[in-house]
Amino acid sequence: MGSTGDQLTHFDAGGNARMVDVTEKAVTERIAEAEGVVTMLPQTLELIARGDHKKGDVLAVARIAGIQAAKKCSDLIPLCHPLMLSSVKVDFELDESNNQVRIAARCKLAAQTGVEMEALTAVSVAALTIYDMCKAVDKGMEIGGIRLLSKSGGRSGEWQAEAKA
Amino acid sequence: MGSTGDQLTHFDAGGNARMVDVTEKAVTERIAEAEGVVTMLPQTLELIARGDHKKGDVLAVARIAGIQAAKKCSDLIPLCHPLMLSSVKVDFELDESNNQVRIAARCKLAAQTGVEMEALTAVSVAALTIYDMCKAVDKGMEIGGIRLLSKSGGRSGEWQAEAKA
Amino acid sequence: MGSTGDQLTHFDAGGNARMVDVTEKAVTERIAEAEGVVTMLPQTLELIARGDHKKGDVLAVARIAGIQAAKKCSDLIPLCHPLMLSSVKVDFELDESNNQVRIAARCKLAAQTGVEMEALTAVSVAALTIYDMCKAVDKGMEIGGIRLLSKSGGRSGEWQAEAKA
Amino acid sequence: MGSTGDQLTHFDAGGNARMVDVTEKAVTERIAEAEGVVTMLPQTLELIARGDHKKGDVLAVARIAGIQAAKKCSDLIPLCHPLMLSSVKVDFELDESNNQVRIAARCKLAAQTGVEMEALTAVSVAALTIYDMCKAVDKGMEIGGIRLLSKSGGRSGEWQAEAKA
Amino acid sequence: MGSTGDQLTHFDAGGNARMVDVTEKAVTERIAEAEGVVTMLPQTLELIARGDHKKGDVLAVARIAGIQAAKKCSDLIPLCHPLMLSSVKVDFELDESNNQVRIAARCKLAAQTGVEMEALTAVSVAALTIYDMCKAVDKGMEIGGIRLLSKSGGRSGEWQAEAKA
Amino acid sequence: MGSTGDQLTHFDAGGNARMVDVTEKAVTERIAEAEGVVTMLPQTLELIARGDHKKGDVLAVARIAGIQAAKKCSDLIPLCHPLMLSSVKVDFELDESNNQVRIAARCKLAAQTGVEMEALTAVSVAALTIYDMCKAVDKGMEIGGIRLLSKSGGRSGEWQAEAKA
Repeated sequence: MGSTGDQLTHFDAGGNARMVDVTEKAVTERIAEAEGVVTMLPQTLELIARGDHKKGDVLAVARIAGIQAAKKCSDLIPLCHPLMLSSVKVDFELDESNNQVRIAARCKLAAQTGVEMEALTAVSVAALTIYDMCKAVDKGMEIGGIRLLSKSGGRSGEWQAEAKA
Repeated sequence: MGSTGDQLTHFDAGGNARMVDVTEKAVTERIAEAEGVVTMLPQTLELIARGDHKKGDVLAVARIAGIQAAKKCSDLIPLCHPLMLSSVKVDFELDESNNQVRIAARCKLAAQTGVEMEALTAVSVAALTIYDMCKAVDKGMEIGGIRLLSKSGGRSGEWQAEAKA
Repeated sequence: MGSTGDQLTHFDAGGNARMVDVTEKAVTERIAEAEGVVTMLPQTLELIARGDHKKGDVLAVARIAGIQAAKKCSDLIPLCHPLMLSSVKVDFELDESNNQVRIAARCKLAAQTGVEMEALTAVSVAALTIYDMCKAVDKGMEIGGIRLLSKSGGRSGEWQAEAKA
Repeated sequence: MGSTGDQLTHFDAGGNARMVDVTEKAVTERIAEAEGVVTMLPQTLELIARGDHKKGDVLAVARIAGIQAAKKCSDLIPLCHPLMLSSVKVDFELDESNNQVRIAARCKLAAQTGVEMEALTAVSVAALTIYDMCKAVDKGMEIGGIRLLSKSGGRSGEWQAEAKA
Repeated sequence: MGSTGDQLTHFDAGGNARMVDVTEKAVTERIAEAEGVVTMLPQTLELIARGDHKKGDVLAVARIAGIQAAKKCSDLIPLCHPLMLSSVKVDFELDESNNQVRIAARCKLAAQTGVEMEALTAVSVAALTIYDMCKAVDKGMEIGGIRLLSKSGGRSGEWQAEAKA
Repeated sequence: MGSTGDQLTHFDAGGNARMVDVTEKAVTERIAEAEGVVTMLPQTLELIARGDHKKGDVLAVARIAGIQAAKKCSDLIPLCHPLMLSSVKVDFELDESNNQVRIAARCKLAAQTGVEMEALTAVSVAALTIYDMCKAVDKGMEIGGIRLLSKSGGRSGEWQAEAKA
């Protein structure tokens, strides 16, 4: 699954898409962490912040959506391998100074391929769910900063995102 | 489905999540447009740009993934209503000055609820698919700027995003 | 879709399963309500009762699972028609004298077939989710009393379950 | 995944739902058996009892629905791990003295987590399918007694339900 | 959705795949019929022919698989519109002189697009299920002759396949 | 999973369908190859042949559909085991002398059961997708010749289809 720099691995020599053959790869422990943010109006963030049993908990719904989406990853992303995730966590942090909800996801399993896409999918669908639940009061929300933070395991080993400026 | 500004419509008075009752709403033509970008290394954008029959067409795969994801929206977003989309389009634009692929999606149907989530989901999954297909050469890609551009139809009528600064 | 009393409508004259033809039926507003209970140890009910932001909210997760399952009904039940639900509600009541969580679901739409199966499926999957989340402390929980409470709309009109003795 | 008795394992210390990390657990052979009943009018049971090639076989359809539902378990139950079932059986017994169909399911695989939820889901969806196919003649049917009968494998080892009084 | 004969309707002027816009099309009653055959060894056909309660009914399982596949059509075929089928029938005929099982499917609904793909998908998945259930005794089975027999409704109106020579 | 020749393995002694127990089978590398053809009008084949970036690439869409369908196999075929495919390839060949597109699929993984159904499903859904994309210009297309070409791995070992006359 290496890349020579001038050929993408999801295509064969003729340019045809394929699910890359990972049969010969070793089963190793794989961990991936991803993040993203939803930027919104201050009053929308406030509605989310005070969410609880009595007012309605947006983040609890978004967390479930993110976890379930990680499990659907190979159905959503055409060339992803099916995987049996052994752990998924989705966390939220309210950043009032930037009017943002920060979403972080962490996926883990022992397998022949990595779980980067699962973590990124969990973040994306959690973000979309926050949008859905708040769109009646704030259609201008923006989802951004979705990126891989780190991965470990597999032939390419450890990888860390560069710190943001 | 109105909002008084201090209550989110996806929760009842007791704070319990629900799929909002739209039975009484009128069936009107609904259109929603959304966009997003994937920012990457210049050489990654170049690989995508020269994609074709012989080299592998990343955007053709991402387009299919986005269209299919729009159809799965109510399965991904817990409180979304199931809808029968009558049109989905996903388009890409290569912005070499910003090292970005810009993704735009447009969904349409006649229904009792809008298609904002379908358009946003199409953009998100198309972006994730681009990430997946290029991650072997560029793990640092970032997905951002996912937002609604416009919607029409329904009780709240027309809505346009503000122009970006 | 009538029944002569000696033939089930999901089979043709030769005994072959089929999805019943409802093309000629009128579109009317349909509502169905169903209920069920999960019986458990007193201490398990107590764990659920004190569930909140800080301790973990079993019922919030079960509610989402129930709502999503209503949307998957035609995929789970082989001869069910696909439907576009316009409203789903799932509610819980803690009955400490009987050590039970009572689950109630209500589904609604305007369509050619009823939503009884959607309401019953929402109750069943909410119950299974409660079991899943508490099974580490109480494997002996029992799910029961799943039944239709009422339906309205369609040719057979109103139907009410008999009161329990 | 142990439980101290005052904390449910599907939540972290902050009360947030998560898919429990089973990466470190041993792969062992897991078996789970579950049961449930559908109680109905005597004449409904009779319709099912005489079901065959020529009259329509309700239980054959319900059996397929149950087996397929076991495979969908991790999609239905939000915090369930995806599993690769290596065996699923669903059986029925007609109990004329109680006007009941008794459903039993048995799931098996070698994995890091148990298959209790798969067996319970198979029973529940088989029961819902029986309801669906007979509801035109008997809306008052009740689904009950859904419980785990036994499990083996994993750290908690053997477990047997207590005999019913 | 018309075709000039030199352009496929599933692509826009730039050659990009899209889900065709049917918003403006009239809702009319649509019916489609499709067929296909599975050719096998005489002894395999005999095993299927004597299938019943006691020996195992291959065709009952294949019928359910075909009906369910019709409902999944828009998830399987990337540019298909989601539809709410109001009737699906799958029938089988044993042709001993040609060692074939003939499969016929008929789908019906009132909608803006036709149900040809649903009928063809039902036939294909019923055929695959027959293969699956008999492959332990006959790996050389062949699935063929899958074609549309007729369609009605919509702007293009009636269409009938030519009789086979 | 052996067959005595007078009993199909997907049924138990009482004729009830089941997912065969493969728990005790060895994990071995499994490969399966399948093929099929779509026969069409010469001008339809020509439209496909000149497909490219600018005109619309039917085969690129069909390839993605086939790969994704292989991943959905256990959801489509009722008694199929869920599998984690480690490689899927779908290829096309244009046969102008027979007015056919030939489709070939190859699936691979290390598992306890074979991947014949996954390869056959990939071929079938790729064929259906070609039909869908060209049906506006050619409703008389026929899908045929779907068969297993070879399999390896597992207790029954190597198997090769006989050459066609």
